[in-house]
Amino acid sequence: MTNEVTRTLARWVVDTKFSDIPADVRHSGTCSFLNWMGCAVGGSQHETLDRAIAALAPFSGPAQATIIGRKERFDIMHAALLNGMSSHVFDFDDTHLKTIIHPAGPIASAILPLAEYMPISGADLLHAFILGIEVECRIGNAVYPAHYDIGWHITGTAGVFGAAAAVGKLLKLNEQQMIWALGIAGTQSSGFREMFGTMCKSFHPGNAAKNGLASAMLAKQNFTSSNRVLEAPRGFAHVMSTARNFDEITRDLGKVWEAALNSYKPFACGIVIHPSIDGCIQLRNEHGLKAEDIKKIDLVVDPLVLELTGKKTPQTGLEGKFSVYHSCAAAIIYGAAGEREYADTVVRDQRVITLRDKVEAVAKEEIREDEAYLTVTLNDGRVLKKHVEHAIGSLERPMKQDQLIAKFDDLARDVLPAERVNALRELCWKIESLKDAAELARASAA
Amino acid sequence: MTNEVTRTLARWVVDTKFSDIPADVRHSGTCSFLNWMGCAVGGSQHETLDRAIAALAPFSGPAQATIIGRKERFDIMHAALLNGMSSHVFDFDDTHLKTIIHPAGPIASAILPLAEYMPISGADLLHAFILGIEVECRIGNAVYPAHYDIGWHITGTAGVFGAAAAVGKLLKLNEQQMIWALGIAGTQSSGFREMFGTMCKSFHPGNAAKNGLASAMLAKQNFTSSNRVLEAPRGFAHVMSTARNFDEITRDLGKVWEAALNSYKPFACGIVIHPSIDGCIQLRNEHGLKAEDIKKIDLVVDPLVLELTGKKTPQTGLEGKFSVYHSCAAAIIYGAAGEREYADTVVRDQRVITLRDKVEAVAKEEIREDEAYLTVTLNDGRVLKKHVEHAIGSLERPMKQDQLIAKFDDLARDVLPAERVNALRELCWKIESLKDAAELARASAA
Repeated sequence: MTNEVTRTLARWVVDTKFSDIPADVRHSGTCSFLNWMGCAVGGSQHETLDRAIAALAPFSGPAQATIIGRKERFDIMHAALLNGMSSHVFDFDDTHLKTIIHPAGPIASAILPLAEYMPISGADLLHAFILGIEVECRIGNAVYPAHYDIGWHITGTAGVFGAAAAVGKLLKLNEQQMIWALGIAGTQSSGFREMFGTMCKSFHPGNAAKNGLASAMLAKQNFTSSNRVLEAPRGFAHVMSTARNFDEITRDLGKVWEAALNSYKPFACGIVIHPSIDGCIQLRNEHGLKAEDIKKIDLVVDPLVLELTGKKTPQTGLEGKFSVYHSCAAAIIYGAAGEREYADTVVRDQRVITLRDKVEAVAKEEIREDEAYLTVTLNDGRVLKKHVEHAIGSLERPMKQDQLIAKFDDLARDVLPAERVNALRELCWKIESLKDAAELARASAA
Repeated sequence: MTNEVTRTLARWVVDTKFSDIPADVRHSGTCSFLNWMGCAVGGSQHETLDRAIAALAPFSGPAQATIIGRKERFDIMHAALLNGMSSHVFDFDDTHLKTIIHPAGPIASAILPLAEYMPISGADLLHAFILGIEVECRIGNAVYPAHYDIGWHITGTAGVFGAAAAVGKLLKLNEQQMIWALGIAGTQSSGFREMFGTMCKSFHPGNAAKNGLASAMLAKQNFTSSNRVLEAPRGFAHVMSTARNFDEITRDLGKVWEAALNSYKPFACGIVIHPSIDGCIQLRNEHGLKAEDIKKIDLVVDPLVLELTGKKTPQTGLEGKFSVYHSCAAAIIYGAAGEREYADTVVRDQRVITLRDKVEAVAKEEIREDEAYLTVTLNDGRVLKKHVEHAIGSLERPMKQDQLIAKFDDLARDVLPAERVNALRELCWKIESLKDAAELARASAA
């Protein structure tokens, strides 16, 4: 079977019908799409987008596709790139917890523009979206954590396969073409974790969307690649990882759905900080905590927290997202950790800084990623403790539908008028019944 | 210094003046450019290009730039991609022997379209071209051979840095922007050797050209990246190689020039067969050999020859390039091993096949890659011997100017009329004195 990994996966994508997808998986897909759309609308005004558009607009093709949350229209490749960036720029998008992949960005960003270029129903769009997530997350499962530990930003590296598969499904590629689409995508797989904290981080899912889209378009014209991009000795899983398990890609295809394991962030920062933030907000609300009452905050966390988010003195909002210290201070002061709590002005606020400097974190191997122990010592001598077993947003404590809606609305309301926010949200919920998926794109324009 | 590798390299690119480049290095640059242009014109009609254009033309921006050897005009990003593919599709382009990088493709393919988008003199173009080669080959030196052995197609992975640096020089990026350009480029570094023998192989340098060009454009708009893409623990040299030597990047910058070490292939096939072909052509010309006179041809060669080019019964032109047997037969019969001698019809020609089957090759560890021993036994009992110490095209026996010209003309004459071939060749030779480098691009159109 290890000779046929790419072919087995490609064949499954080509052959699967929408009716093969269980209702709960479709619902997960719809939630993922809604969450992605909210993030993309919310992120669309970010400076990262302004700079990318200033740089690349002169080279755009025809105005084929909407740029979510904006007035510009570009060709579908540029739309895929820019939508993928918007959807990730707040670090607020969905998470496949087994791999830390943010699944929706590379895929939805590629297929939504396509719906403005050729007729695609909502059901077909959702179908392709879910298949893309399967491809992306299964490939991620096969190489995680070794691949991530080396330094690859797995959302980009695995995402490009997902985007190619999803677009390929919509282009009705045959099996050989689908194999080529995965091959052309794989040989563009890229993105370093070194870029975290810079504009390149959100560039990765955007680039994966664009390159996956282009890969499927090339394959449709019989542009050839290796037939064994995943499993060959010089293919993806060997070149870009020190360990691999191909069973993760081919086992139980169509029976076990990774798309159903997607989760949504309540907080606009790296997911490893979420248990700490969750604990801070709970303690704040339970005890009416004020910053001035606090002597110190001690955290015991998973080692990844310090590795990924150990910035002690962040200077910008973006850096704040990689600071467990800032995040906890903001959570205590504001009772939230949305995009607003990562504004530059908040990160530089003296009250936040003072509390931030009172936060200390210790890593212990035995702590799980969605777990944290908090001890808050008050000036009056009281000591408050909280054990967060599973952070809000985890599979064990998922966000409820009304929380997803509140998150969507909160993200979208700064960009679109209220009635447009409502209309777009409702279109997302009924994606499966839309005759023309391009409605979603048009409704997301500024 | 290992904290400042990227910055040191970026600063050097920003600060270097054209007058800092020695005359012999400039001459090497001119030869490399000419050789690249010939390969790109010659390769421009390949099916690989037709399919890529069919797939991507609907998404092209304004008709800003020439596609070498063709009538279409696309935006400069697509031009960079397509020109890079044309220049590599015959496997006939230049070689930096220390790293097996084909240096010109990613760089020239990015900067020539730029000359049609903004005013660039020939001297500035040559300057940027040479700096791009330095960046690309020095980064290659730092990670070769470990990086290549893992399975990375180093022309793509290192090429994207060179393209970004060259374009960045022409865009007059400041030091910080040049660092970002390298960072944005590096986080797109990609391309598997697994793709060799498929259309994706020539896609790699094209993609490197396009992505490097985009990286510099983004950096010009202050799109940020890590400042340490090369040396950081999660940067290029650690993530994409198992060994690295940063001295190779920063040592003797501006004193030792990798661009002067570029070499050009006289034969349109893998470089390991070149000593055998060279010996066959020499014996043929010295003794007036005819296929029918030959009883057998015995070769003693480097083991890589059989490993890479040991196909005994190639069926297509592409397979013929991986057959030392076909190559020697064609060399004896035609006195050449250009693109024509690797046509499908030649590989399937009975006269060639009969002679091919008389070729035997034995590998010996002590033979160097650019060396071969040939023994030709004739039907009349004569035994002719030839020891090729260094194949034509090696640094010890470089192609002479008239041989470069003959190669250029041979590649271009099937695509452009004779007077256009002459005009384009002369423009390339006088690149340094051109007021407007766009002349080169315009002269290369079909």
